Amino acid sequence: MPELKKSLMDLGNRRLATVPPSAIREFDNEITTIPGLIKLTLGEPDFPVSDQVKQATKKAIDENYSHYAPSFGFIALRQEISQYLDRRYEAHYDPEHEVVVTVGATEGIYAAISALFNPGETILVPTPAFPLYETVAQVNGIQVIEVNTAPAFLLTAEKLTAVLTQHPEIKGIVLNYPNNPTGATYTHEQLEQLAAVIRQTDLVVISDEIYAELTYQESHLSLGKLLPEQTVLISGFSKSQAMTGYRIGYLAGPRQLIAMVGKMHQFLVTTAASPMMMAATEAVAHGEIATTEMRETYLQRQQLIMAALTQSGFTAPKPAGAFYIFAKIPATLTQNDVEFSYDLARSAKVGVTPGSVFGSGGEGYVRLSYAASTENLQEAGRRIQQYVSAKAKQAEGI
Amino acid sequence: MPELKKSLMDLGNRRLATVPPSAIREFDNEITTIPGLIKLTLGEPDFPVSDQVKQATKKAIDENYSHYAPSFGFIALRQEISQYLDRRYEAHYDPEHEVVVTVGATEGIYAAISALFNPGETILVPTPAFPLYETVAQVNGIQVIEVNTAPAFLLTAEKLTAVLTQHPEIKGIVLNYPNNPTGATYTHEQLEQLAAVIRQTDLVVISDEIYAELTYQESHLSLGKLLPEQTVLISGFSKSQAMTGYRIGYLAGPRQLIAMVGKMHQFLVTTAASPMMMAATEAVAHGEIATTEMRETYLQRQQLIMAALTQSGFTAPKPAGAFYIFAKIPATLTQNDVEFSYDLARSAKVGVTPGSVFGSGGEGYVRLSYAASTENLQEAGRRIQQYVSAKAKQAEGI
Repeated sequence: MPELKKSLMDLGNRRLATVPPSAIREFDNEITTIPGLIKLTLGEPDFPVSDQVKQATKKAIDENYSHYAPSFGFIALRQEISQYLDRRYEAHYDPEHEVVVTVGATEGIYAAISALFNPGETILVPTPAFPLYETVAQVNGIQVIEVNTAPAFLLTAEKLTAVLTQHPEIKGIVLNYPNNPTGATYTHEQLEQLAAVIRQTDLVVISDEIYAELTYQESHLSLGKLLPEQTVLISGFSKSQAMTGYRIGYLAGPRQLIAMVGKMHQFLVTTAASPMMMAATEAVAHGEIATTEMRETYLQRQQLIMAALTQSGFTAPKPAGAFYIFAKIPATLTQNDVEFSYDLARSAKVGVTPGSVFGSGGEGYVRLSYAASTENLQEAGRRIQQYVSAKAKQAEGI
Repeated sequence: MPELKKSLMDLGNRRLATVPPSAIREFDNEITTIPGLIKLTLGEPDFPVSDQVKQATKKAIDENYSHYAPSFGFIALRQEISQYLDRRYEAHYDPEHEVVVTVGATEGIYAAISALFNPGETILVPTPAFPLYETVAQVNGIQVIEVNTAPAFLLTAEKLTAVLTQHPEIKGIVLNYPNNPTGATYTHEQLEQLAAVIRQTDLVVISDEIYAELTYQESHLSLGKLLPEQTVLISGFSKSQAMTGYRIGYLAGPRQLIAMVGKMHQFLVTTAASPMMMAATEAVAHGEIATTEMRETYLQRQQLIMAALTQSGFTAPKPAGAFYIFAKIPATLTQNDVEFSYDLARSAKVGVTPGSVFGSGGEGYVRLSYAASTENLQEAGRRIQQYVSAKAKQAEGI
């Protein structure tokens, strides 16, 4: 319980000081102690890891995978990732030099943004977006231009062209599809149009495709296939294999870019945990059945909670991917999204995330994660309906 | 196998570009394919993880510790770390706000240096030192002043006072004891003198005490006890519990500093791997016997390889801690330390690390790690003796 020396109170990285801690986690921490709360706030599957993956992990423990792995990750895992990207997305990466295993997608995001851009340079982030991209940029002195994509939550080729004309200084762009928080994703045609614009520029794309396995309409089209010469692909196993706590993700891209982000990765963490990489090797090699089963369950849950929301007057585009609904708060409710989310948590015991934490375009919306149990989603739906109807009666003065 | 777009060849973080990749790993990669090579290059215990720790890890896998942990780490682990630091080193930290679990000490080093200093600020690094401190500073635009501590390899209070007088701009200092690469550590008296100087300044100390459990003379005195109001302590389980591949370390310090480095930690990796934290919880709670056994084995190995080196004409202070010998190449050999290390690897099939990769003061030395099997150390000793004696005969023209 040391007391910091008084004269040291002002030290520290000033860029870091200006960045708030994760607003998602902060809000979640504040409401988490409410008794009986059903939390739809977290981007975390409620499934356990598959038995196959558990067996492989325990085998790795027994077989003494307790020593340092190569910094880029075990070559067997990189080979499996390379084969998987080829098999599923027709994206071709050399496992030796074009794939790096990271500590979840988070470390991948930090390594990519910090390694590829200089302080003072500018990147474009379409919003609403997962706040980490912007945070990491800010910490590294990189400017961010937000592009508001509401209400369709997709960046169009036209809008991109307009922003690039206005801001020729932009060096890179972060794309995340299927999208957290909106559940939107690009059709093949939309993505091709976007790629056609980017191809005419010298932008680097950081393409976070961590939800690629969770699409409910068209199949996922990767920029690793469409625009590999300008793309660093970020993905991982957290979402599709329910392995969030195992902290394994990966980066793939042209050799020169991977050399840079891989060097940063080495300085950030040395390498990922060896037994966790053995788990991921099993998951990527034989995990497709588990993913298919999860996807079907998510779709049922999405329909269930969408029905309850629609009946309560919320509007949301039908989610095309990931496990989030980004719902517009009914006009009958007069609170802003932060007030609404606090009140819903306290009065109705349902935790949702205020849309404004995801940047411009998120105001007036809330994010609901349907990576929760069916039972909880049903009960949450009932509670939301009751809450909205009670508010309507209040407003009518009944 | 994407080809990077030609016009993108010049992008990327220029600070990162100026930093070489880990010279230790680079050298190791270059010699690693030599057939029959005995490698004494790595700072990695050859022991397996204890059965107790393995059992605890497998239990965590079975019990579905596959979800996100709190960003600072499971509170049970932080409590164990807090109790351990109290029990072993009389350093008192509140587990709730003053301890963060990191992805090995590496991530702790990155988080601490990047969070506590601003680009353009200056820190002091006594050398020879583990190169990562300087690398992380450079990547973050932080200036480094090296202080050459050869031949005793300890920073004296006098030298520190002199450097601070000359460079009043210095904001922080990195201490690492027991030291990698030299095996040196401070006596209680020396450390108290150093702390007395620092106490009169507004320096922050980043104190990397990862080898604290491996001392062979006096017991380890922590700056967490002696100077807690100015210290961020870095440690972990990699070295004392042979858990390098599990990637668990920790940071401890005054609440205000831990708030900063913990925030950076969240942006870097979100949190460490959940099953690996459960392993660490067992290791820190019940791992003291395993550590005691390892320490005894290391001491025997140290004596064995020291004897061989001394007979061959190398000089090295008797190592006080860690598992390295930093040996001065005999004057009879005319090569510099890099040439010598390459030649020893190729001709005698013994891999050692050239001292100059550890900064000023390391030229003319080599680092030998005795975290290798007794058999390999015996054979390496024989080979080194043969090599030196063959060189002596060559020089005499026999």
